[in-house]
Amino acid sequence: MNKKLILAKRPVGMPTEDTWEFQTSEIPKAEKGQVVVKTHYISLDPAMRGWMNAARSYIPPVEIGDVMRAGTIGEVIEVNDHPHFKVGDVLSGWGGVQQYFATDGEGQFKVDPNLAPMTKYLGTLGMPGMTAYFGITEVGKIKEGDRVLVSGAAGAVGSVVGQIAKIKGCEVVGIAGGPEKCSYVVNELGFDACIDYKNESVARGIKEHCPKGIDVYFDNVGGEILDHALARLRRHARVVICGAISQYNDTQIQGPKNYLSLLVNRATMQGMVVFDYASKYREAGMQMGMWMMEGKLKTEEDVYEGIENFYETFLRLFNGDKRGKLLLKIIEDE
Amino acid sequence: MNKKLILAKRPVGMPTEDTWEFQTSEIPKAEKGQVVVKTHYISLDPAMRGWMNAARSYIPPVEIGDVMRAGTIGEVIEVNDHPHFKVGDVLSGWGGVQQYFATDGEGQFKVDPNLAPMTKYLGTLGMPGMTAYFGITEVGKIKEGDRVLVSGAAGAVGSVVGQIAKIKGCEVVGIAGGPEKCSYVVNELGFDACIDYKNESVARGIKEHCPKGIDVYFDNVGGEILDHALARLRRHARVVICGAISQYNDTQIQGPKNYLSLLVNRATMQGMVVFDYASKYREAGMQMGMWMMEGKLKTEEDVYEGIENFYETFLRLFNGDKRGKLLLKIIEDE
Repeated sequence: MNKKLILAKRPVGMPTEDTWEFQTSEIPKAEKGQVVVKTHYISLDPAMRGWMNAARSYIPPVEIGDVMRAGTIGEVIEVNDHPHFKVGDVLSGWGGVQQYFATDGEGQFKVDPNLAPMTKYLGTLGMPGMTAYFGITEVGKIKEGDRVLVSGAAGAVGSVVGQIAKIKGCEVVGIAGGPEKCSYVVNELGFDACIDYKNESVARGIKEHCPKGIDVYFDNVGGEILDHALARLRRHARVVICGAISQYNDTQIQGPKNYLSLLVNRATMQGMVVFDYASKYREAGMQMGMWMMEGKLKTEEDVYEGIENFYETFLRLFNGDKRGKLLLKIIEDE
Repeated sequence: MNKKLILAKRPVGMPTEDTWEFQTSEIPKAEKGQVVVKTHYISLDPAMRGWMNAARSYIPPVEIGDVMRAGTIGEVIEVNDHPHFKVGDVLSGWGGVQQYFATDGEGQFKVDPNLAPMTKYLGTLGMPGMTAYFGITEVGKIKEGDRVLVSGAAGAVGSVVGQIAKIKGCEVVGIAGGPEKCSYVVNELGFDACIDYKNESVARGIKEHCPKGIDVYFDNVGGEILDHALARLRRHARVVICGAISQYNDTQIQGPKNYLSLLVNRATMQGMVVFDYASKYREAGMQMGMWMMEGKLKTEEDVYEGIENFYETFLRLFNGDKRGKLLLKIIEDE
């Protein structure tokens, strides 16, 4: 049987357990031109919260009654006359929060599990990694010597952003929650410093570690931290708006009250959506793979097990109780 | 005697009459290498409010006890061995709110009063015009067919922004306060439409006049109007942060709570300060002068008289009771 998670209602604020409901159906059959994929891992991303809102956004919302959208990686177990895929192929794409799905292959990409573990294809070689790569290079336009500040520095995106900035010759300061994460960011990932927003003044930390101000701020969190960063921009600074995890579950968004720092400092605040760079994923993936092999780019996945544990795992995105890429493993044997 | 206006204390919120005080001194003498200028007009600009705050900004604050900073235009009445200027020359620059000043010429530019009336050199051929020109072309990056929204559309900057956008083939929608200003913006300046924020829903007006959304929003006002504009951005839209007149006198700045529209729409919000384009003022001035002669660019000055009326005239910047460039004429005979 196929267990799947259905969006039962639109959450107001933080989702609750009854936001979704599990349903069970037959394992789907491949129609002509389709394959059936057995999902191994589901990606949990902060962006999922946004997809649950009815509002106009960069992709259509998940509709009530639909399987909850999620990135997945899994193995083809059945093929019915598909032009490209065969049984045993590993596909990464939009499988949703379910154990099996049938697809004509649209939005699914074949990956090589011998080059990297499956989990990496949902992390550094997947959406979060691509977001980091294009966000910091093309939107942040980093150049050698820039002082780069990254929030969510221990997360799937932020950890990669900071390491790429280091590779490119920048001075990199992270912001993360708790001494353990901050130690990881500095000692494992090689950032120059990390501000513990749970135990330190972020304003003071930025002042200390970016004494001449910030050239690039990569924002994953929004809220007060964004305001502290804006207050310390250098001239012609770039602020990359990648996410706003502190705001996703708030019914009232907190706008950056220091936004006039953009004027004073002739600075730019720019939003990004990773899908725009799809034509260059391959090239970025090769570059990131090389850095990983050379030991310059370290990444972690935080893997939990069991589709039935989706809700409690999802909450870790917002309560900070995870490190690196958050994944749910949904097969028992691999 | 020389009457001058001194910053007496830093205002909190809206300046009051005792924010400044008048002082009288001897008319200055030109020391060697200096000239003395008799000011004819003083420019009143929203930016003046910012210069009165102690905070770090794009130019140093006016200090307590200093003459209030202001753009001026006036005539050289005395020269003491100056390499460039002679008696009778007309200089535009930073004379401050006073009747006479001595200067070595730094920050003063000689202009030709036969090519355009003096008042134009503080308006369309001065800072507001340059701000409009570089803001909409270089920061807003307008191109033919863009849908451009401009707040403060009847003001010194906004009126020029919209007309330049029309010249460049854009569809232009203004926002201004009151039916008289809106009629001026559409019927005199040639905007395609104007939303009266005092009597209409701005959200509804934007939806009506920008049915497919906004490509460029030129913001002079901040606050709720900025949020309404953000809510209707098109993909890759550019938001030019030129000013935030609704916020300058507020002790608590209202951040744009719809800023995540930048992410959804891959849009850019960029601040600007006109001084950065100084090397190109001349070229822009020639272009704007040509448009003025061809009748494509219409501008108005709203001129009040008497340095003693500075305070009540200054308030017109913020209560909306003016149209076009606000000036104070401070000589009795011209």
